[in-house]
Amino acid sequence: MYSDTVSEGLKLFNFKLSTDMKFGLGIYKDIAVLLADYNFGPLCMIVDSALLNNNKVRDLIKSLQQSLDVVTVFENKSVEPDYDYLDSCKAELVSLKFDSLIAIGGGSTIDLAKGIAVLMRNPGRAISFRGWNLAKNPALPVIAFPTTAGTGSEVTPNAVFIAKDEKRKLGINTDYVRPQLAILDPELTLSCPRSVTVSSGMDALTHALESFVAKNATLTSRIFSKEAFSLVFNNLPMLLDDMGNVELRGRLLLGSYYAGIALMNSG
Amino acid sequence: MYSDTVSEGLKLFNFKLSTDMKFGLGIYKDIAVLLADYNFGPLCMIVDSALLNNNKVRDLIKSLQQSLDVVTVFENKSVEPDYDYLDSCKAELVSLKFDSLIAIGGGSTIDLAKGIAVLMRNPGRAISFRGWNLAKNPALPVIAFPTTAGTGSEVTPNAVFIAKDEKRKLGINTDYVRPQLAILDPELTLSCPRSVTVSSGMDALTHALESFVAKNATLTSRIFSKEAFSLVFNNLPMLLDDMGNVELRGRLLLGSYYAGIALMNSG
Repeated sequence: MYSDTVSEGLKLFNFKLSTDMKFGLGIYKDIAVLLADYNFGPLCMIVDSALLNNNKVRDLIKSLQQSLDVVTVFENKSVEPDYDYLDSCKAELVSLKFDSLIAIGGGSTIDLAKGIAVLMRNPGRAISFRGWNLAKNPALPVIAFPTTAGTGSEVTPNAVFIAKDEKRKLGINTDYVRPQLAILDPELTLSCPRSVTVSSGMDALTHALESFVAKNATLTSRIFSKEAFSLVFNNLPMLLDDMGNVELRGRLLLGSYYAGIALMNSG
Repeated sequence: MYSDTVSEGLKLFNFKLSTDMKFGLGIYKDIAVLLADYNFGPLCMIVDSALLNNNKVRDLIKSLQQSLDVVTVFENKSVEPDYDYLDSCKAELVSLKFDSLIAIGGGSTIDLAKGIAVLMRNPGRAISFRGWNLAKNPALPVIAFPTTAGTGSEVTPNAVFIAKDEKRKLGINTDYVRPQLAILDPELTLSCPRSVTVSSGMDALTHALESFVAKNATLTSRIFSKEAFSLVFNNLPMLLDDMGNVELRGRLLLGSYYAGIALMNSG
């Protein structure tokens, strides 16, 4: 009612950011200290299968196993999970007792963890949650360790899955899948190959631009759009000439996180 | 361990913002729609006594009473609440059944609501929670309607109270008192007199500056420091020549919120 008559700068907008974030080089090595404030019970880990031979990820898994009650390390074998795959993962995990999930991987692994988090607390096939706010019960909390910089899945309320019968991607979207905690360690993105670094970086740039020009962009979301664009645009080209540079990796990772914040707060 | 050897831009930092925010001119008039997504049970309202004769606040109270289960409207009679006053408020409220609090007022009223939120779920005298993280149980959720722009209490994990025996102000500080929701309506700050507008605005400027130069300032907190400084510094002087200007009131209110975010994320 009021929104038609007030000026642009005074229109209703929301800003929401439910995910705690920790950023820093090599912080994954001190994971027990970082997570000490959170009282996690039994945990299920979802790990990108491509990373199971990565030394840093193996160290991270080992140290999580030593400091927390990890009931299983579950391998995400799908590069682009579909709803049937999500159902099959649930079937494998449903008999285990855990009350939080840890995701280590790119956007699709984090999305898979978010989907499992919903299914573990909501009866029904995965496809029945495709759309907006269809889960009745809160999902399990997810802790995300992104190993690529781009999707922003570590902070968004979206989990993308493919429906085989359709070409469009429509995911499971609900506040319940906002991760509780995102651990951004540039060191964990060092293994991300050039091609994925570029395509993920372009994702983040797209999020930054789309969120800036979106009809529902807000004063606050645009702050993040601008910071995200600047971080990714200025650092991605340099990174391609220097793929082992952790400073540049860090700026890209932070930019991608900001882009996710901008995107989810611009409608 | 790692933080001594890595460069400034890669050092460990946290970013946390648990409070959902809604900003907009006159949104208080549509409060039932705004709060529809939150399933609030019985509520206790804490209102600054100076505002009980304010027409807008009376309308807001009425519409909250119509749309929600408000068990009491409790008057904050103290400009600077002390621990004894907090105890006396608890004694008056403890027999009522409510599971959330709404605060309408300046920083001291929001702080009072936060203090009551702690005491309703944690046995013991108020003074015993003075310090950091001394509450064992989660506090009740607080919804904050700031009517001044400056303290940032609508978003911080701090509630300031005076201890009569000491001169220093040391509050109750815990993640549990981060408000669940902040409703920023510039219209509700129109009644804030010139003197309080200036002193609160200076508070916000101080927060913006202090957080920027703080030893634990981070890449992300500084984004908010800068935005806050710019909004308050550029708009407060103009507002003093035009106290009824809702655009300027809005920028100040948003700047003060950003300053609170910067402050609480810079250690």
